Order: sequence, then structure tokens, then C-alpha cells
Amino acid sequence: MAKRKCIPVAVYGATGYVGAELLRLLAAHPVFAVRFVAARQARGRMLAEELPPLGAWAEGLRIQGVEEAPPEEVALAFLALPHGASAAIAARLYARGVRIVDLSADFRHPDAKEYARTYEASHPHPELLAEAVYGLAEHARKALAAARLIANPGCYPTATLLALVPLLRAGVLDPARIVVDAKSGVSGAGRAAKRELGFSEVNESLRAYGLPRHRHQVEMETQAGLLAGVRPQLRFVPHLVPMTRGMLVTIHAEGDVRRWHGVLTSAYRGCPFVRVLEEGRLPATKHVLGTNRCDIGVVPLGAHTGVIVSVIDNLGKGAAGQAVQNANIAFGLAETTGLSSQALWP
Amino acid sequence: MAKRKCIPVAVYGATGYVGAELLRLLAAHPVFAVRFVAARQARGRMLAEELPPLGAWAEGLRIQGVEEAPPEEVALAFLALPHGASAAIAARLYARGVRIVDLSADFRHPDAKEYARTYEASHPHPELLAEAVYGLAEHARKALAAARLIANPGCYPTATLLALVPLLRAGVLDPARIVVDAKSGVSGAGRAAKRELGFSEVNESLRAYGLPRHRHQVEMETQAGLLAGVRPQLRFVPHLVPMTRGMLVTIHAEGDVRRWHGVLTSAYRGCPFVRVLEEGRLPATKHVLGTNRCDIGVVPLGAHTGVIVSVIDNLGKGAAGQAVQNANIAFGLAETTGLSSQALWP
Amino acid sequence: MAKRKCIPVAVYGATGYVGAELLRLLAAHPVFAVRFVAARQARGRMLAEELPPLGAWAEGLRIQGVEEAPPEEVALAFLALPHGASAAIAARLYARGVRIVDLSADFRHPDAKEYARTYEASHPHPELLAEAVYGLAEHARKALAAARLIANPGCYPTATLLALVPLLRAGVLDPARIVVDAKSGVSGAGRAAKRELGFSEVNESLRAYGLPRHRHQVEMETQAGLLAGVRPQLRFVPHLVPMTRGMLVTIHAEGDVRRWHGVLTSAYRGCPFVRVLEEGRLPATKHVLGTNRCDIGVVPLGAHTGVIVSVIDNLGKGAAGQAVQNANIAFGLAETTGLSSQALWP
Amino acid sequence: MAKRKCIPVAVYGATGYVGAELLRLLAAHPVFAVRFVAARQARGRMLAEELPPLGAWAEGLRIQGVEEAPPEEVALAFLALPHGASAAIAARLYARGVRIVDLSADFRHPDAKEYARTYEASHPHPELLAEAVYGLAEHARKALAAARLIANPGCYPTATLLALVPLLRAGVLDPARIVVDAKSGVSGAGRAAKRELGFSEVNESLRAYGLPRHRHQVEMETQAGLLAGVRPQLRFVPHLVPMTRGMLVTIHAEGDVRRWHGVLTSAYRGCPFVRVLEEGRLPATKHVLGTNRCDIGVVPLGAHTGVIVSVIDNLGKGAAGQAVQNANIAFGLAETTGLSSQALWP
Repeated sequence: MAKRKCIPVAVYGATGYVGAELLRLLAAHPVFAVRFVAARQARGRMLAEELPPLGAWAEGLRIQGVEEAPPEEVALAFLALPHGASAAIAARLYARGVRIVDLSADFRHPDAKEYARTYEASHPHPELLAEAVYGLAEHARKALAAARLIANPGCYPTATLLALVPLLRAGVLDPARIVVDAKSGVSGAGRAAKRELGFSEVNESLRAYGLPRHRHQVEMETQAGLLAGVRPQLRFVPHLVPMTRGMLVTIHAEGDVRRWHGVLTSAYRGCPFVRVLEEGRLPATKHVLGTNRCDIGVVPLGAHTGVIVSVIDNLGKGAAGQAVQNANIAFGLAETTGLSSQALWP
Repeated sequence: MAKRKCIPVAVYGATGYVGAELLRLLAAHPVFAVRFVAARQARGRMLAEELPPLGAWAEGLRIQGVEEAPPEEVALAFLALPHGASAAIAARLYARGVRIVDLSADFRHPDAKEYARTYEASHPHPELLAEAVYGLAEHARKALAAARLIANPGCYPTATLLALVPLLRAGVLDPARIVVDAKSGVSGAGRAAKRELGFSEVNESLRAYGLPRHRHQVEMETQAGLLAGVRPQLRFVPHLVPMTRGMLVTIHAEGDVRRWHGVLTSAYRGCPFVRVLEEGRLPATKHVLGTNRCDIGVVPLGAHTGVIVSVIDNLGKGAAGQAVQNANIAFGLAETTGLSSQALWP
Repeated sequence: MAKRKCIPVAVYGATGYVGAELLRLLAAHPVFAVRFVAARQARGRMLAEELPPLGAWAEGLRIQGVEEAPPEEVALAFLALPHGASAAIAARLYARGVRIVDLSADFRHPDAKEYARTYEASHPHPELLAEAVYGLAEHARKALAAARLIANPGCYPTATLLALVPLLRAGVLDPARIVVDAKSGVSGAGRAAKRELGFSEVNESLRAYGLPRHRHQVEMETQAGLLAGVRPQLRFVPHLVPMTRGMLVTIHAEGDVRRWHGVLTSAYRGCPFVRVLEEGRLPATKHVLGTNRCDIGVVPLGAHTGVIVSVIDNLGKGAAGQAVQNANIAFGLAETTGLSSQALWP
Repeated sequence: MAKRKCIPVAVYGATGYVGAELLRLLAAHPVFAVRFVAARQARGRMLAEELPPLGAWAEGLRIQGVEEAPPEEVALAFLALPHGASAAIAARLYARGVRIVDLSADFRHPDAKEYARTYEASHPHPELLAEAVYGLAEHARKALAAARLIANPGCYPTATLLALVPLLRAGVLDPARIVVDAKSGVSGAGRAAKRELGFSEVNESLRAYGLPRHRHQVEMETQAGLLAGVRPQLRFVPHLVPMTRGMLVTIHAEGDVRRWHGVLTSAYRGCPFVRVLEEGRLPATKHVLGTNRCDIGVVPLGAHTGVIVSVIDNLGKGAAGQAVQNANIAFGLAETTGLSSQALWP
């Protein structure tokens, strides 16, 4: 694991799905070097035994408790912890000068009151909210370059906002008439043992969930408002799909549909991870499996109505991939460092 | 297979997925007795070899060509053939006095011009269109009782219309503002060998398809208009989900949302195959696997917006199940004869 | 649910996978009528809410605690409880004169010492062991007709013994050289929430488990010895396959391979649920999904070696299906009453 | 795609599953640079359209016909073509001095007669057979270093031989008593449209196939004989598992079982891609998904019998991964160059 000129990093929540994906990416990263892994439940066990998928790379790393301090040289920490638990650790690391990419929801809401309403708990460190940069990488590069605390976007917000923000900003999409019909693979629900996530319950089944108001809806409306200058009203319905990874968001919207494709194409010119397909073509989640990519398809339906379909890997661009991308930007590295653009296929 | 007072039936297109499901249901049916099976490609082969899932029941049945005449005593024929191919055979059987349940699209459009536009071919037997009864069973019982030619609804139309028709008829849903975001298992695409339906391509993937205008959209708009008295405008987007069977339709709509649940509950009181869940609860496709059921969930989101989610087994209520239900009604049998209401679960 | 001349039955462990499958079968059974359902955890809740797949049939049934007494008229009880918990309830019902089909392992071992060694607990009611009939239906019809306590075989033993017993009895298979390489769908592991059975862990993965000695191995060796007159030595390795239902057992064996197909064909002539395929043909689990069938394929490889492949639905013939078959026999009904032979396919 | 000091390479059969995996790996390879892609059916089309999973990397590459000559500078060619078709192209490239890694079966059999018997066709270029090095990388490093024509092993042989060869060579495993019960994901069957590989047929199903004698059996026996000095007799039964990627081989064998773990551990000490688990632990295919790894578990069952379980990704170590590994060795690069050891998980 020795790397020259490496930047030592810590990963919290290492044994969850997002944590495991972070470790997979960091194992192959040429600059960030994992020096510390922590988890709430597997404390004291060897990482290699907890995560055989990591192979020999993980050998020798022992999982620490999340309350333990990482080594002095650690300059960057990824927090893949549940909301609520994350903020306290973030505050401690922040005070030490460690840069933070927080993958929980704790710093995604600029307003502590909105956080409290959405998560039904008062925010443990509201004083840090103003420090946090919302890391929708393609729309926050400047702020990220100086960021010390990065709030990594949720998976649904990432797929949705990448499609919506340029269109809202350009004024070609009616912000009051947006249906976001979203579909997620099961890994998005996390690794905790739950009967309703058992293979036999989920396999060969499809269902909507999280109604009437999923927490990501507020995040999307607020951040769209900040990034695009106009706060949309979303009608958001998420679904659980019998596949492990992958997220597809179908946006049914109205506006100047003939301009949508052009606006999106311009917005993402030069962006290595966002690809706008030819007008009329539709993306598939399997085309981005294991990558940090987002593929977007645009199809006008009528004179004023159309559909935008956006796909990501919920653990990639929707979580760990974007977290590494954000950290790359924050440390002045090329945005693509250590990130794959070729999907595992088939 | 001997049954007393049985009604001899024929099944065309026996080796496709819909045909196989028809045979599964008819094997267990106490009145309809399969006397003739035909298919376009497996002609001359033994049914038991082509469809081992049917077990010993299929032994002794040889697959006939679709051009061959069924035995004299056949009183009912199920046609599970591609559109275009179906109408010619229907016409011949109709002339012989055989009652017909046609599972193709050939008789779903009352207007030959609409058919021609939608299927890009002139209708082979427009003179029969006026004879056909559109078999959305719960909304056509009277007409079905006297029907000689039944047009079995498509799978998307079945799941969608069962949710929409009562609401449109009651005037509590805005017909101009309906988004139908639909998701189907792969068996809906049929059994023909296609690379894009191979396991390795479909598994762990999700995609939208059929845009800008899937053929079922016209069927839905037209039949909703006829059944509800008001023709809605639908924005319809179908998706392919990595599961074999199951269909879920998410309807994002506007109107007098507080009345939706009551209207639907009243509409389907006493209907053995349609179940309206408690308000706020959401159905799952696996809860109706292998059945002729449709489960419907209603969730108000705002003052005037809400979501209706409808699930069926695309080969059950979406095809073969409803076909048997329609035939039951046409022959004066109890609607539920030979049809299961308990899903195969897990 | 009213049925004339019905036999009132109770189902214990109603909300597990085996219990749910029992209820699905009993809902469609023309004689057995469910009067009492009990479960250890869902006590007091409505069955219809716990098991939406059962549809309207389940409405009105409240789940009782397993300690509560079933109504007087109950003549038959199915116990789908964990081993250990089952025997105590069986003893109580037995004393009341209720006939019992026990789907746990509690009465599968005629010897209390063998049970104790295998399950690491002394048997709670050894006095009942001599009463129990091992319900491998095709090989125990006579004993079953008079049985008051039926030990329903495990899923692996069912698929394995149906293939092995006739060959061992005929002396055409070497009992000392048998490899049983078995593969099971995930539902065989039960419904309890476990991280290693989560969709994201199991999907797209395959693994062996249960080594060096799975509990079913002893059951198979002992019962094969009793049924065939010669106790084989098995080398048994089970695997977990990413599918919900289905079990395939590959038996690699030696002996007079040219006689295998004939011996098996003769043994199962007239058996409605066991089908020996033409020599050289191989079965698939999907061909028996949802049924009480067992399909067996025989392929000679060399002069003295060959392969036998046996498939069942682990919840059907491997559990609930065979339980109903056994109860049918015990109550003098036709063996096939209420049981399907046509698989849900595709 | 510009790389300094790169080695220009060609990929034939680029649009099949093995070809796509080769391209995925080569896209991330720091030395090999793809200059030419050819396929038999997609000739003339753009690679980026045929394989959206490759993302922007593929843009600009046009698919050539397999008969066309690659650019002069191409020094290495990967042939992912069907057997029979491959040898002719190999011969042409060989004559030009291009090094070849052939992923078909054409050069895996040192004896033209054995090839003819197995593939029922005479070998098109028997004069090249003596030139070919069988590329089971861990057992052929020296020969590979000088190889101009590398026969890449089949997937079943790779997983099987990595487990067997050290044990046979050490004389601790009886070569006459080996059962190889193998299970493969569906991608191993290739990308051609076939009804029996359709999602709805394969999903939720498991079956054995390829009996009485799969072609890989001969390859395994012959190559084991050459590599270990003793030709084993295998009883080989392959199965098709409902997952896209992954292969698990269960070897039931006899011998000095207490020495197996030690022999294997010694044999693969220092091998980056083969990992022998602690004795008694069992591997899972998902732990090696997308990698070039092979994980091996050893479990003694009795005094002289035991089980060895070996897992690979059939498209990784079983095909494209090992091909790149072999090419790395042949060109004097570090064996691990461009190859991942961390699985995509979950």
C-alpha cells in the first residue's frame, strides 16, 4: 500500500456498502492512501475478514471504533455513517484540521430548522452548516476547491439534480410541474439486516416506498433552488427494484422541450462523468455499473412535455464515486483520479 | 383430462409465454378442457416436450399448425398470437361459431384507422371490429355475457385503466394531467430470442423504452374514453425491470385527491380480483405473482396531487388470467372459476 | 371459506415461508379448511396484513400464539416451527387426538441419540419417536394411511432420497461411493432477518455452506438405510443459489449405470408427482416451480459411473407440498387433492 | 487514449462479452493501447454505440471486419472469437510477428487429433500447435515470458486446474477419483441471441447441461496431465446458475486430505491473484466479481475425503483478466499491471 507523495486518509463506516465501495476505490487510487478504517459494529476485527471482496489489499488493517482518533498524518476523512452519528465525528475531525467528505445527510441542509423537520432531531452541530459545501461536483467545482467540509449529495438528489439544474437555470423547464419517478437498486437501503430486504422478499418484486414524503425530496428542492436560482416543486416517488446497484430517475416535465437537449449538452461539455446521449436515446443502469458516470437521455413527447431519464450507480456517482471526485477536486488532483468510466458489463 | 360437462377449448400460440400461462390455468380449470393446441413454430412437436413445466398433464397433446382446423366440438378459442396474425384466424373461427378471446391487439381498437396508424398496417378484418367487446372484465361484465369476440386488454392498459376509469368517471381526476410511469417484468416482451432480452443484458439493469409513443398509450386513451366517458391525455413511459413477471404502474395525477380512495373502494366492492388497499399503503408486484389479482394503493401527496399505484402479474390479470376470467363470464360460469387469488410467495 | 364435509385444520408457524406456502395450498384445497393459524412473533395481528400475497382469502383470520389451544373440531395440524419448538406442541396436540404433520426436524430421526448428536439438544419427547412416520410420500404410503404423527422430510433429503432409494434397494448403486452436490434457493434458509441473506449479499453470488457436516446428511443416511435396506455413506455439499425457490441435487455415483433409468422408471410408474425424464435429458428447477413435483434425470457417464439430477421446489415437494400430500394420504383423500402439477412458468 | 511508451494492441471479437471485458480492462491499462477493434457482425459501426458501458473512452473507434489487417504497429492481438474462426486469423497475425493471446479453444489442445475429436472438425493450422503456450498463468510463467502464441485457458479449466494441479503434482490427491461439480453464470454462454438464455427462461432456474461430456473436460485432463505430470480422470458436470458473472467449482476428491491446505498455500505463496482461504472457510463468487482473482477453500470431510471449492469471475480470471495477465508476463510487465484485485461488491 506504499505510495509516494500520498495523502493519508481515514474511512468511517467502513463495513457498510458505501464504506466498502469507498475502500474499493481508494485501494486503486494513486494518491489517497487508507491509513485508518473505523466502524461502529465490527470494531477490533480484521478488515480482510469482514470484507473478503477487497482481497489481499485489506490484509493487516484492523477496524477501529469510530470514537478513536485517527493517526496524526490523516488529512482527509470519508464519513459513511448514519445521519446524526456523523456530525459529531465530523466536528471533532474538523477541529483537528482534517478535511471531510461526509456521505450522511448531516450537512446537506443549509438550514438547521429544515434539517430538524426532515430528520426529526435537532442538528448536533449547526455552527458547521455554513462551512459545508454541497458536493454536486459538476456544479460546485469552485467551492469544492477550497472546501474543508463537503456534504456529499444523496443518490436520488445526484441523479435528479444533474438533470434538472441546468434546465431550471436556463428557464426552459416549468419548476412547478415536475414529476420525479425514481427507481433504486436495493443496496441503497444499506447493509443492516432487515426482513423486508431479504433476498426472497425483494427478488422478483417491485414496489414504491417512502411516501408521502421521502427525505431526499427536501434536499433536492433546496439544493436545486440554491444551484439553479429557482426552487422547484417536486412530486417525488421512489421505488425499490430487484437489483443490487443502479438508479434510474424518470423526470416527467414541461417547458421548452426542444431546447432541453441543447442546454444539457452545453452544460456538461467537458465533464468527464456526465454524458448526454443523442436526443431520443435512453440510458440503462447497467451501462454505468461500478462507475462514477451519469448518463442522461432526453425525449420530447409533445409540444411542451417531455421526459428526461438519468442513470447512475447509486454507490458510485450516487455515493462513494462522487465522494472521491469531490476529494480529488478539494486536493487539487485531476477530477478523474482513481475513478473508472468503464462499466462492469455485462 | 376427462371432465364432465366440459367445454372444449383451443389455444393458439401455445408455446409463447402467454400461451403457456393459458395452458397452466386451463389445466386446472374445472370446465374448460383443452382439445387443441396450435403454434406457428413448434408445429408437429409434442407439447410435453416443448413445455416441461406443464408436467404429465401435457402428455399426449401434439402441437398443430395455426392454419389447421380445430375439432368440431371446440366452442371457445384463446388466441395468443402476434397482432396481424391473429385477426385472420379469429375471422375463420368466428364464422364457424367458435367464441373467441383474442389476446393480441387486433380487436382492441374500435376504429380501423386508429389501428392502422398505431400498428402501421391496415386491419385485415375491419368488419369484425364492431363485434368485439373490450374485456376489461370489471368494467364490461354485461357486454361480456353476450360476447362472441372478446378483445383481451394489454397488460399496461389493464393495470392503468383499473386505476383510472372509476376516477375519471367520477370526475375526481383531471384528465389532462396524468403521468403514467409504468414498469414491467421481462416476460412481457415475449419469448422470441433477442439479444437485448438475454439474461446477461437484462439482469441488474433497468431502462425506459418505447418512447416517444408506446402502442398501449393509444389503447389506454381510447378505452378510457369509452369506459369513463372522458378521454384522458396520458404521458406514458414504460420501463423494463429485471424480473420475470410483474407489472407496477405509478400514476401521478391531480384532482380531488381526498375522494380517490373512496371512489375506488366503492367501484371495486364485490370484485374478487381487485383490491384497494388502505389509504397510504402501497402494493408490491410479488403480492400478486401468479394470480389474476390487481392491488391498488392510493396516496395523496398535496392538496390536489396524489399517486395511485397499481400492480398485476403481467401474464395473469395482464393477459392469460383475465382471458380466462372473460371466458368464464361469457360462458356464464362464476368469474373466479379456475383462477387463483393467492400469490406464489415468496 | 365454507366447505362442505371439510376437515378443519390448524397451521403453526403461519408467517414463515413454509407456513405461507401451506396457507397458499390450503386456501385452494377442497377439503382441508384452515380454522386456526398461529405464529410465535406475529401473535394478535391479522393474517391478511402479515401476508398480503394471500389476498382476500386471509381476511378475518387473526394470528394466535402457538401456546393457545386450537378449536375443538380441528382434526389436523401442520407444524412449520423450528426444531425443538415443534415437539412440545406436537405432544400436546397428539394427546388431544389431532393428527400432525410436523415440518420441523423433530421427528425425522428414529433414534433420540442421533437427534441429540445432530441437533445438540436432548429430544423433548422421545416417547413419540416410535409413533412418527417419515413422510417421504412415494415410499411410505401404507404407513402414512394409518399415521397420527408424520415427520415431513427435509428439502435436501426429499430430492436426494427420491433419486437414491430405488437404486439402493435394487442394488444397482454402490452405497459407499456417493457424492451429493446440492444447490438450494434462498427461501430454504427461512424468513428471519439475517445480513448474509440480504438481497445485495446473495444476488449474483454463489457459495457452498454447511460444511463439514450439514444436519440433513444424517437424516438422509438414516432414512435411506431404513427405506432401502442399506445405509449409504454420503459426501454431501450444499450450496446457496441466487434464486428464491428451487432445489437441484446432482448425485455423482457408481454402479450398474445402465440399469438406473429402468429401475427409477419402474419405481415411480403411477406416481403423479415424480417424473423420470428420458435417459440423457436433464431437468431444471423452473420446471417444477410452485408444484409438488420432482423431476429426475439420469445420465450414464462411463461404464460404471453416472449422474442423477433431481429437482424440486424446496417449499413445494420439499416442504409444504409434500406435507399436504402426506395429509391427503393420511385422511384417505386422493394424493393429488389440492396440489398443482403445473409449474408457474416462466 | 494517448499513452507514452505504449504497446499498440488489437482486439478481435470486440462486441462479445469476453471482448467487452477485454476492452474494459485495456481502457484502464497503463501500457497496452487499443488501436484496432474488429468483430464479425458489427463491422463498420462505432464501438461507442455498440458498447455504451465503455463510456467516452470508446468514442472515435470504428469496428473493423475481422479479415482486415490491423495497423503495422500493432504488437499484440487478443482473439475473442469462436473456435475454428480464431485459428485462421491467428495464423495470419503470427506470420506478421504479432504476439497473440487466443481466447478460443483453438490452441488449447496440443494434439490435433484430440482437437478434432473434441470439436468435430480438423484443426485449420496444426503446424502452430507446438508454438502455443497454455496460459494458466501461475503455472506457466517461464514459458509465457517467451511466448508468441498463448492459448488462454477456458473458464472451467482455469478454476479447476488452479485447485488440482498443485495437489496432483504433490501426489496428495487420487487422480482416479475426482468429481468436478461446476457452476457458471450465464455470461459464459456468450452473447448470441438464444431463447434458452433469455432472462425469463434463466432467471429463478438452475440446471445441469453439457452431459455426458463437456468439451472442457478433455482440456482439463490433458492440461492437468502436462502441468502436474499425472493425467487425472475427471467426472465433470457443469451447471447454469441464474447470475451474470461468476463461476464456482466444487471438487469432491480423495487422498491425503490433511496435506491439501498446506500444499495449496505453498503453491500460491506470492501469487497476487490466487488466495487460499483458511482451512474450513468457503469462498463466494461475489468476492471476486470483476477481478482477476481465484479464491480457493479447502474442507476435509473424512479421513481420506474432502472438498475443494474454487471461485473466479468467468469473464475475469476465466477469460479476459487472465488474458491480460498473460500478455503482461509475455511483455515483461508486472503481472498485475492494469488488473484489479478488489471485487465490485455488493
